[in-house]
Amino acid sequence: MTKAKGYAAQSAKADLTPWNFERREVGPHDVQFDILFCGVCHSDLHQVKDEWGGSIFPMVPGHELVGKVTKVGEHVKKHKVGDLVGVGCMVDSCRTCDNCKEGLEQFCKEGSTMTYNGYERDKKTPTYGGYSNVVVVNEDFVLKVSDKLNLAAVAPLLCAGITTYSPLRHWKVGKGHKLGVLGLGGLGHMAVKFGVAFGAEVTVLSSSASKKEDAFKLGAHKFVVTKDEAQFKSVAGYFDFILDTVSAEHNYNQYMSLLSTNGVHICVGAPPTPSEISSISLIMGRKSLAGSLIGGIPETQEMLDFCAEHNIVSEIELIDIKDINKAYERMLRSDVRYRFVIDIATL
Amino acid sequence: MTKAKGYAAQSAKADLTPWNFERREVGPHDVQFDILFCGVCHSDLHQVKDEWGGSIFPMVPGHELVGKVTKVGEHVKKHKVGDLVGVGCMVDSCRTCDNCKEGLEQFCKEGSTMTYNGYERDKKTPTYGGYSNVVVVNEDFVLKVSDKLNLAAVAPLLCAGITTYSPLRHWKVGKGHKLGVLGLGGLGHMAVKFGVAFGAEVTVLSSSASKKEDAFKLGAHKFVVTKDEAQFKSVAGYFDFILDTVSAEHNYNQYMSLLSTNGVHICVGAPPTPSEISSISLIMGRKSLAGSLIGGIPETQEMLDFCAEHNIVSEIELIDIKDINKAYERMLRSDVRYRFVIDIATL
Repeated sequence: MTKAKGYAAQSAKADLTPWNFERREVGPHDVQFDILFCGVCHSDLHQVKDEWGGSIFPMVPGHELVGKVTKVGEHVKKHKVGDLVGVGCMVDSCRTCDNCKEGLEQFCKEGSTMTYNGYERDKKTPTYGGYSNVVVVNEDFVLKVSDKLNLAAVAPLLCAGITTYSPLRHWKVGKGHKLGVLGLGGLGHMAVKFGVAFGAEVTVLSSSASKKEDAFKLGAHKFVVTKDEAQFKSVAGYFDFILDTVSAEHNYNQYMSLLSTNGVHICVGAPPTPSEISSISLIMGRKSLAGSLIGGIPETQEMLDFCAEHNIVSEIELIDIKDINKAYERMLRSDVRYRFVIDIATL
Repeated sequence: MTKAKGYAAQSAKADLTPWNFERREVGPHDVQFDILFCGVCHSDLHQVKDEWGGSIFPMVPGHELVGKVTKVGEHVKKHKVGDLVGVGCMVDSCRTCDNCKEGLEQFCKEGSTMTYNGYERDKKTPTYGGYSNVVVVNEDFVLKVSDKLNLAAVAPLLCAGITTYSPLRHWKVGKGHKLGVLGLGGLGHMAVKFGVAFGAEVTVLSSSASKKEDAFKLGAHKFVVTKDEAQFKSVAGYFDFILDTVSAEHNYNQYMSLLSTNGVHICVGAPPTPSEISSISLIMGRKSLAGSLIGGIPETQEMLDFCAEHNIVSEIELIDIKDINKAYERMLRSDVRYRFVIDIATL
């Protein structure tokens, strides 16, 4: 076994504190790498606090890992020692179901193995995430990372990046389309960057007027304060797509009125309670309300390559790992522009 | 003006009774035809009872008209005296908006002119529907009807037919797809026929076990009683598409569990109250909840031609117009298999 250290929550009520644990030996198909940076996702907080139920403790959160390969198993072909690599939300899947075969491992019919707060395929060995110094992952779930980009700012691409890239690609959002990005946080700011890169006209829809300047800096073409009724109505029937990154409770019906004919409202945020939806708001204009979950491994690699080519990274605030609990508090207040990333060297 | 007679509701509380009224003179682009049959749509009942609000009285319902041309305006090119023709839910639209130009007149941005309970483009002349002996309609909204089919059974194609044909075509439902048809009524029975004709495996999802035999007669491959928990669960994750024809209150969230990855649940029925929807049920499997409204004029003609080629008509019960109020009562009890059609010769 490989000795590892990290920050863990010992229970749903505990802060994150230093913890020593072990990673498995490097198997024939495994890659071991030193984690250099790990992004902090809002879902880390939900799971640490057991807000979704079923949390596994001790929990080492973190599913936006980047680092440098230190060891590879004898059959590993995809990666070699010294490579820059990344791992996102998944570290394995059944590999045999239709979805896995199509590269949609996030929809593995047997359930994919989550990077933390999950179990390995044996259904009993817990997985531990990226708030730690070293990790061992099957080569097929290890992504190649370019050395052209700021590595710390690459980390959030592994979740926030792919979560927004994937639906924009799936629905073929691009030139000639009007894209609304609802919410300008960790996900939303990546959606703006990708939307712009794909050639769409991007409007940020935000409840907070304070983000207007940032929105334009990120490349958005328009900004609408959703709480301002006149501004809201000014974009009635306007959007071909809305990418909805909001995890707080909100009314989907209301946003249907902003879609044009054949418009699609895509949810990537998961509010705690259901929304009402009226079929009439879908029928009038042949509209759709859809959802999307991260992305499969091939598409995650495609996204990383696209980012390297187009010089796209996340906007981050680099933190020391000892400040992670404070970072969670600030995240709760939406006081982060736009993603905390842990400098694992501070561990 | 042309003298017309029909059955009208004089108020939301009144039964339908005989009424004499006038149609406009045949203009240069108009077609006048003797109505031979008119289908009875559930929405006729909603509008007669003013359940959707804003009903215009006196009201002559009916938007599934078929008949024979008796007169054409001097510039009419599409139709001639003696032709069999039909008219559906719309008799005009702005003709100039993007949607009209694309043949999606049902989504006309200025609002299409409904066949009854609407106003002509002048916004003041009421339109009167097909529970009558004669009608005058602009040639562009008059469809060609084949003489190969039972004309009475063609009438419901103009609404029930196109309402189910259009979404199946739009979402390209066909060979290799598993289609669930939710509700086996006027719309549902047409959805089964089209789904089968397009090569999909069709499962009827019905709350009533009594419709099983009919479902198979209509060509369905499977039948699931939705109230039977074991049967419901047996099709979890099964369908590529569900065409939801139910107008009664029901829970969309529940049906999301029956969709496979990328599955689409398409609403064509309009329940009186909104349903709850959880974004998680959409996110897990990249599913969509969508809506569709009748179809545009070019697609309605395509549908009629397809029906003529494939010998598809509605299953009907032909009634005398004097029995229309009784038919409404039976429709309220779902006691119709599957569409009442008025024999206008009985007027």
